[in-house]
Amino acid sequence: MIILGLDPGLGTTGWGIIRAEGNRLSHLANGKFKTDPQAPLARRLAHLDAMLAGLIVDHAPQAAAVEEVFVNSNPQSTLKLGQARGVVICAAARAGLDVGEYAARLVKKAVVGTGAAEKAQVHAMVARLLPGVKIDGADAGDALAVAICHAHHIASARRLRT
Amino acid sequence: MIILGLDPGLGTTGWGIIRAEGNRLSHLANGKFKTDPQAPLARRLAHLDAMLAGLIVDHAPQAAAVEEVFVNSNPQSTLKLGQARGVVICAAARAGLDVGEYAARLVKKAVVGTGAAEKAQVHAMVARLLPGVKIDGADAGDALAVAICHAHHIASARRLRT
Repeated sequence: MIILGLDPGLGTTGWGIIRAEGNRLSHLANGKFKTDPQAPLARRLAHLDAMLAGLIVDHAPQAAAVEEVFVNSNPQSTLKLGQARGVVICAAARAGLDVGEYAARLVKKAVVGTGAAEKAQVHAMVARLLPGVKIDGADAGDALAVAICHAHHIASARRLRT
Repeated sequence: MIILGLDPGLGTTGWGIIRAEGNRLSHLANGKFKTDPQAPLARRLAHLDAMLAGLIVDHAPQAAAVEEVFVNSNPQSTLKLGQARGVVICAAARAGLDVGEYAARLVKKAVVGTGAAEKAQVHAMVARLLPGVKIDGADAGDALAVAICHAHHIASARRLRT
């Protein structure tokens, strides 16, 4: 199972792709999409959509996952984030992928073992769980973390069924 | 010039299509897209995206317009609205349309002549400006209003150029 983790944002969207075979995880790719802050909103969203559609065609993931959003107290930031998040989730769904949503606490628990972990700890554990990975910045690290969380949930669901 | 006005929302997105020839406006179609509140977010967004893509293919508008958003004080509502708005704007941009954004005050001024108009007044004037229109609810009325606003701005820009 190939899993695409996503950390959506209008300026920068982090992405990470892993392979999960039972409990064995391996890293396939990670990176970030940037949109031009000078460009009109519609063009930025369409650019983000096109980059993500291309990534999905290239790597043929079978599932996608995003973190549930920490709602910002700044309504303008929340709106911006929502717009990018809508485009990202929709692009994955349009490509036929189920999109799992996980609370930040669950992601930390899956990666580090405790829901109260610091972000630096999460990224350090992502690097240990995915040997050889070079993480392309914090957003890509967060995207890999949510992909790992999704892999754990699939593995648990399978254990429960069998 | 055929103009598609949009009033995005996750539950209901209003749409309205008009034709503008100089200062002459006519109504082509209006309605609303609804998504299933029981369905997962990803499916709702993909459904909205698909309905809008179909509408654009059917009516071949040359431009789109949305109202700038009144940012809600409830961050969860703002996030939901943002997600739907991102998908709607992106679908229009992906289809090659320029997407105009207009402040609510500008829309009211274009339709009623004053930025302080009540919503009922706006819908009444939409009905007068587009003879024969049957407005399919408030969201479709708002979508027609922003399409009219876009038409006025194009006409003014043309007058300024010549």
